[in-house]
Amino acid sequence: MAMKEWKFRENSKLKTASAFSIKLVLDDVKTNVNPSDERTIIPLGHGDPSSFPCFRTTQVAEDAVVDALRSANFNGYAPKGGVLQARRSIAEYLSRNLPYKLSPDDVYVTLGAKQAIEVVLSSLRKPGANILLPKPGYPAYEALAILNQIEVRHFDLVQENGWEVDLNGLETMADDKTVAMVIINPGNPCGNIFSHHHLQKIAETARRLGILVISDEAYAHLTFGSKPFVPMGVFGSVVPVLTLGSLSKRWLIPGWRLGWIARNDPDGVFNGYGFVECIKRSLNTNSEAATFIQAAVPQILEKTSDDFFVKTIDILRKDAEMCYECLKDISCFTCLQKPQGSLFLMVKLDLSKLEGIKDDMEFCSKLAKEESVILLPGFVLRMKNWVRVTFAIEPSALEDGLERIQAFCLRHAIKK
Amino acid sequence: MAMKEWKFRENSKLKTASAFSIKLVLDDVKTNVNPSDERTIIPLGHGDPSSFPCFRTTQVAEDAVVDALRSANFNGYAPKGGVLQARRSIAEYLSRNLPYKLSPDDVYVTLGAKQAIEVVLSSLRKPGANILLPKPGYPAYEALAILNQIEVRHFDLVQENGWEVDLNGLETMADDKTVAMVIINPGNPCGNIFSHHHLQKIAETARRLGILVISDEAYAHLTFGSKPFVPMGVFGSVVPVLTLGSLSKRWLIPGWRLGWIARNDPDGVFNGYGFVECIKRSLNTNSEAATFIQAAVPQILEKTSDDFFVKTIDILRKDAEMCYECLKDISCFTCLQKPQGSLFLMVKLDLSKLEGIKDDMEFCSKLAKEESVILLPGFVLRMKNWVRVTFAIEPSALEDGLERIQAFCLRHAIKK
Repeated sequence: MAMKEWKFRENSKLKTASAFSIKLVLDDVKTNVNPSDERTIIPLGHGDPSSFPCFRTTQVAEDAVVDALRSANFNGYAPKGGVLQARRSIAEYLSRNLPYKLSPDDVYVTLGAKQAIEVVLSSLRKPGANILLPKPGYPAYEALAILNQIEVRHFDLVQENGWEVDLNGLETMADDKTVAMVIINPGNPCGNIFSHHHLQKIAETARRLGILVISDEAYAHLTFGSKPFVPMGVFGSVVPVLTLGSLSKRWLIPGWRLGWIARNDPDGVFNGYGFVECIKRSLNTNSEAATFIQAAVPQILEKTSDDFFVKTIDILRKDAEMCYECLKDISCFTCLQKPQGSLFLMVKLDLSKLEGIKDDMEFCSKLAKEESVILLPGFVLRMKNWVRVTFAIEPSALEDGLERIQAFCLRHAIKK
Repeated sequence: MAMKEWKFRENSKLKTASAFSIKLVLDDVKTNVNPSDERTIIPLGHGDPSSFPCFRTTQVAEDAVVDALRSANFNGYAPKGGVLQARRSIAEYLSRNLPYKLSPDDVYVTLGAKQAIEVVLSSLRKPGANILLPKPGYPAYEALAILNQIEVRHFDLVQENGWEVDLNGLETMADDKTVAMVIINPGNPCGNIFSHHHLQKIAETARRLGILVISDEAYAHLTFGSKPFVPMGVFGSVVPVLTLGSLSKRWLIPGWRLGWIARNDPDGVFNGYGFVECIKRSLNTNSEAATFIQAAVPQILEKTSDDFFVKTIDILRKDAEMCYECLKDISCFTCLQKPQGSLFLMVKLDLSKLEGIKDDMEFCSKLAKEESVILLPGFVLRMKNWVRVTFAIEPSALEDGLERIQAFCLRHAIKK
């Protein structure tokens, strides 16, 4: 049978958007692994430590889900925006670190932070609108902006300033059609933490520009350096903030798909702008998180003991230290800061010191082939010839992976 | 603070799409309920029987999820397209009713059938494309077509022919830009079942037009009349078929969000059209179903006993019978067929026999106000002055609800 002249592959929007996918790029890199290498593959490319025994989630979280499921009270559809007790407990959880109280109405439950991005960007859709995204950043923003026909403009995070936002640059690229800026704190992919002072300057800049701040706090509380995590919502009366968060990283359960959008707008600026109506509509065209997982949220947020968090942070701190100490001494790498949060750091490649490697993709492909170590090429984060390294794996596996990277770089170093 | 001239409410695409939402319309209807009415609200508007004890899911399903969760093997991100064992077991489950075997690669796991619609429609997105949807139908298709900029054209289901597709009408509205047609079988909202013969005629028509068939089988196997359920995939070698399904209705767990897309294309027609690539891209911009729920699918599909299904069907048969027998005798209603499947039937209002009720929305609003019974106004299904009645609730509650509808119609009947 011949179908109409229709070709799926001509779906150009989807194709353009798919260029910005960590998953698809990592899949590409992995195809290079040599199946006859008997060593374990060391996955330093993705942000999901959950398969390592030392990063197993707390039993409190498992019990909470089992209790909700066994009650049989949560087999039906959830209300749009989320189950009330989940919204209330997330509001209380976030309010612990804010100078004002969020209400359940300020919180919308989503399928992880990823759907939170989707809902927020689709609510911002408007012909001619543009959004300011960090470079480096998280590519889902770019993909979803494209699908929602929002023009993307990139502002720089400056390595020399601890990956702070280049606020002057940001201000010059904003115009009348700019609707929002995005920050990711703790930083993905840079492992940096924004200070209270820097967040305040961001808030003041956004206020001056008349744009809202989308603060991606998927890695909230995963900090292990000297700087504390400060939620952007602290500056909610300077500028309205939409905070995106999830259980995925702090509770080590990315596969459970439970996230949120929180409206940090104590002065009600959004009220005049039809925001609630619009987010509701956007949620309405999306699927919701499983109802019984939503219903487990209060128990998870209220009953998880500090011991669990402390244990995770201790491992991450050691991992980050080990990773930084090793990579900074590799001559073809530049790595200025020890990560202070999240699960990642960024390394700049000096290709002039390497033989027969033309770019970041080739570096990662050959590393996968020769050493069965997976890193993320920076181009997908808009950082050509950089690589993102995830240090959040079992420490012994990390040690192994770092040794393989060292050996690889030595083997490919230009002979003087 | 004044924000840019930006207004969320100007997001017109989202606004147009939201007009097609059963949820939002039901929310509107419910606002009319009189809080001082001490009787229970009888929910005959939505398709979610899971809150009634007689429609509790099987323990097999609960156990399967608990086992997957407790294993701690499924806390991480799922692969795009779904966990392999889930894809394999869904392929086997669907193959039981097909003249050929599906492979795991033919199956994509989704967040319920709703996300299956989203993924398929976004893969069909192309400037100028149009899609043929049934009238009456399921409004999510219309909403998601709008968001994906696909023009919608409606073909009729003809009540007098047992809600069969008006194939002549369909053929005249198709053109070079038509990419697909949608059928929903068992029928939502009409409660009809398409015969083997009618499905074959649909397949031949679609083949002649060179378009694919999207067959929404969310209510598969929920049949209780004389006609058996035949999956459209049976005609996969006449025309390529995408089958959308889920655990939601047959297992009474809509809140678990587990569905699928199955490619019924034994002759590989899709291969030349970039289909797999495109669906992958579309999945990639979406969030996936919780990994541990996916991992529970094999146990659920393989171990659920027939007793569970038989019990559900028995209750639905009695409910459908009771509902039809009552409604067909109400003089302001026309209801030609007893439902044979799904959870619904459609009733036509004869407003000339009612005093002071101008349309379906007013009928439903006043019924909610005076009798605390919720029905779905037909306009949201493109059937102005019809109503959709869900009979899938606890039989005693249904009896109560039907008596209240009778009383309401009698009270509002025009006095002769």
